[in-house]
Amino acid sequence: VRAGLEQALRDAVRTARLAPGVRLPSSRALAHDLGIARNTVADAYGQLVAEGWLVARQGSGTRVADRAPLVEQASSSPVAEQPPPRFDLRPGAPDLAAFPRAAWLAAARRALSAASDHALGYGDPRGRPELREALVAYLARARAVRVTPDRLVVCSGYTQGLSVLCEALRGRGATTLAMESHVLRDYREIVAARGLRLAPMTVDDEGAVVAEAGDADAMLLTPTHQFPLGAPLAPQRRTDAVRWAVEHRRLVVEDDYDGEFRYDRQPVGAMQGLAPEQVVYAGTASKTLAPGVRLGWLALPADLVDDVVEAKTLADRHSSTFDQLTLAQLIASGAYDRHVRRARLAYRRRRDRLVAALARDAPHVRVTGIAAGLHALVELPEDADEEELIARAAQRHGLALAGLAPYRAAGAHARGPALVVGYATPPEHAFTAAVARLVAALVERE
Amino acid sequence: VRAGLEQALRDAVRTARLAPGVRLPSSRALAHDLGIARNTVADAYGQLVAEGWLVARQGSGTRVADRAPLVEQASSSPVAEQPPPRFDLRPGAPDLAAFPRAAWLAAARRALSAASDHALGYGDPRGRPELREALVAYLARARAVRVTPDRLVVCSGYTQGLSVLCEALRGRGATTLAMESHVLRDYREIVAARGLRLAPMTVDDEGAVVAEAGDADAMLLTPTHQFPLGAPLAPQRRTDAVRWAVEHRRLVVEDDYDGEFRYDRQPVGAMQGLAPEQVVYAGTASKTLAPGVRLGWLALPADLVDDVVEAKTLADRHSSTFDQLTLAQLIASGAYDRHVRRARLAYRRRRDRLVAALARDAPHVRVTGIAAGLHALVELPEDADEEELIARAAQRHGLALAGLAPYRAAGAHARGPALVVGYATPPEHAFTAAVARLVAALVERE
Repeated sequence: VRAGLEQALRDAVRTARLAPGVRLPSSRALAHDLGIARNTVADAYGQLVAEGWLVARQGSGTRVADRAPLVEQASSSPVAEQPPPRFDLRPGAPDLAAFPRAAWLAAARRALSAASDHALGYGDPRGRPELREALVAYLARARAVRVTPDRLVVCSGYTQGLSVLCEALRGRGATTLAMESHVLRDYREIVAARGLRLAPMTVDDEGAVVAEAGDADAMLLTPTHQFPLGAPLAPQRRTDAVRWAVEHRRLVVEDDYDGEFRYDRQPVGAMQGLAPEQVVYAGTASKTLAPGVRLGWLALPADLVDDVVEAKTLADRHSSTFDQLTLAQLIASGAYDRHVRRARLAYRRRRDRLVAALARDAPHVRVTGIAAGLHALVELPEDADEEELIARAAQRHGLALAGLAPYRAAGAHARGPALVVGYATPPEHAFTAAVARLVAALVERE
Repeated sequence: VRAGLEQALRDAVRTARLAPGVRLPSSRALAHDLGIARNTVADAYGQLVAEGWLVARQGSGTRVADRAPLVEQASSSPVAEQPPPRFDLRPGAPDLAAFPRAAWLAAARRALSAASDHALGYGDPRGRPELREALVAYLARARAVRVTPDRLVVCSGYTQGLSVLCEALRGRGATTLAMESHVLRDYREIVAARGLRLAPMTVDDEGAVVAEAGDADAMLLTPTHQFPLGAPLAPQRRTDAVRWAVEHRRLVVEDDYDGEFRYDRQPVGAMQGLAPEQVVYAGTASKTLAPGVRLGWLALPADLVDDVVEAKTLADRHSSTFDQLTLAQLIASGAYDRHVRRARLAYRRRRDRLVAALARDAPHVRVTGIAAGLHALVELPEDADEEELIARAAQRHGLALAGLAPYRAAGAHARGPALVVGYATPPEHAFTAAVARLVAALVERE
């Protein structure tokens, strides 16, 4: 009874049904009204005075406090963030210690002082004009993407780009999306959650076997550097995929997540440049800057723009204005290109060191997928156990690793055991030690 | 033929199938191979040299240029942003000229220098711990919301919050969402796009008639200040809504979009505080700071957290890390509270001036919904024509206005003609003139 009374009074104060300053009935009067013991009421009043909801003053009875106390603050446990592993060679992120904080902050300052008040309101769902114009120039220059600002939609990362794209396709009657047999599992979940059926395509040394797309409505590819297997899509396959799309009026979605990072020769231009009306180009700042930026972009065929814009509008109206304006400044000032160039050099050096270390100290593994990107595939002997190796590396070496198995679609052809090694992940000072621990973990199983 | 050849060569260079520096066959040889006239080839080469794709040097023939030119840059028209109207009394945004730019930038600087590298990577889909902890304290203090950081999900604005919430509800088998008869049209579209049926509830002077929710799976309310009609939900209706949810184990979604702005007495606490396991509280920075911040938050019942987190993950993994860290700093430093307090005073003064001006100069209209928030309902005489008035105000007075009609759900009881006047929208210096123009537009129809 007492707990119930306390709660009722707390709620009444909290919701201002009992306004600040209001005098409560005496404990005797309330006990009488409620038909309960006077002590129960007195104890409840005392508890609430102690908690700060009520104030008791000699001679003026018990009143509602002027200000409700912080509610249940003490009981709310702080959110424990998982501490990062000591060494980390999992793929998916660039070296976060190399994020250009000073340049980002300077760009943010310039962006905010240049922005009109109007720019801080609700805006075009495609994104800030400043960013779309900067991206059009950048994508043409760096990735040979052919697009105009009105066909570019800025998204909150590629994840959202894929999500709104799937919604737009579904809305136009699409039912099936062909995807590489090995992709990030979340992407399969997004495609399924948006109501599309998945048709997996085998991935071999030349990338996806695009002929397996059959009569899917669209085909999703990572042509520059297959994720996670690492092969670039062979020239003939590129041509075949585009022809498939053009001839049947279907779509290719080009996930160019790490297209800026090509090491063995001049970067291959985006497939989108071959057929801008049949290829959706998707880029992201997650690998060039940091995933926390949460910005990506879609270069769209003209007849898909309205549907994607509608899906984006219903998803979140548009992406963060501040981040967009800041990235636009970063690109326009040249700082973005400089950062990407520096990162490319650094990651190529890391790749070379990884390949050399494994060739020398762990010759029983085979390293592939190294022409581009931020990760390599380390193929293990047939009898190796991915999960056991990953658990052992974590326990004995403080090293986080990712295996290939979780990327495989159900029913897709299984590959031998392998690690997907993200060599961009550690900070520069920890890279050598991380590779040494990888070698140790690989060798000790022998 | 020539255009086709040019395009094929451009594409080959763009995609690096013809690598930089590669020497092309002579025009004579290529013409022979393709069975076309030599002039056609020579003209195509000439055109591509002019465009910068190829380089012709005396004595060394025609080669692929070292760097592909900026593609179609010249033809991409800059994105024309719609200029804001000269005077604007439409609802939906606070005074953007009052956005605390210096405080925001200072908070961004502190946030970025305090952030670990790890924080810039992919993080908890619920949002940054710093922000969730700051919000828990703020919401308890300012809105009497009872929540812990693990049940708070930061979203990219309320739009996304509603979207992921609808997905989570749909995933649990919900089919129907009761909504107020008058709401933002986009919200009806989101609910429908996520597969839920809409059941409109009449709105009268006491807010939504919650008894009309019937056997809907959830009820969506704007209890502090109905948008757009302006009535606060009456105490009995609040209680009835919570009882409906508790008794039938259903949900109330409390859209507290402008709960910080209450003028006539102490703010009423959030309904969520009455029944945290049956009420989802939704807040946003769009009205307290600016829509461009694109941050909102959901305080969730324990058993709904996992489903909402899954939907949020598939929507965009998480919201902008920089904006989240900056907002956390802004709240923790007290600058957010100071800004809200200043804004509340300024908007109350504007409300009083608007009400006084209309009472004096346009007594034929009735102003309601003024106890809270950033907008008032200006009810027009029965025979007035909303659309005509809005068009005339724009044309003759450079004043943008919003009518009530577009907010009404199909089939819902129609209200008389009215304007939804957002008195927070103009910058301070333009407010007096905006109200004068509103009066002029209202009066000249007489």
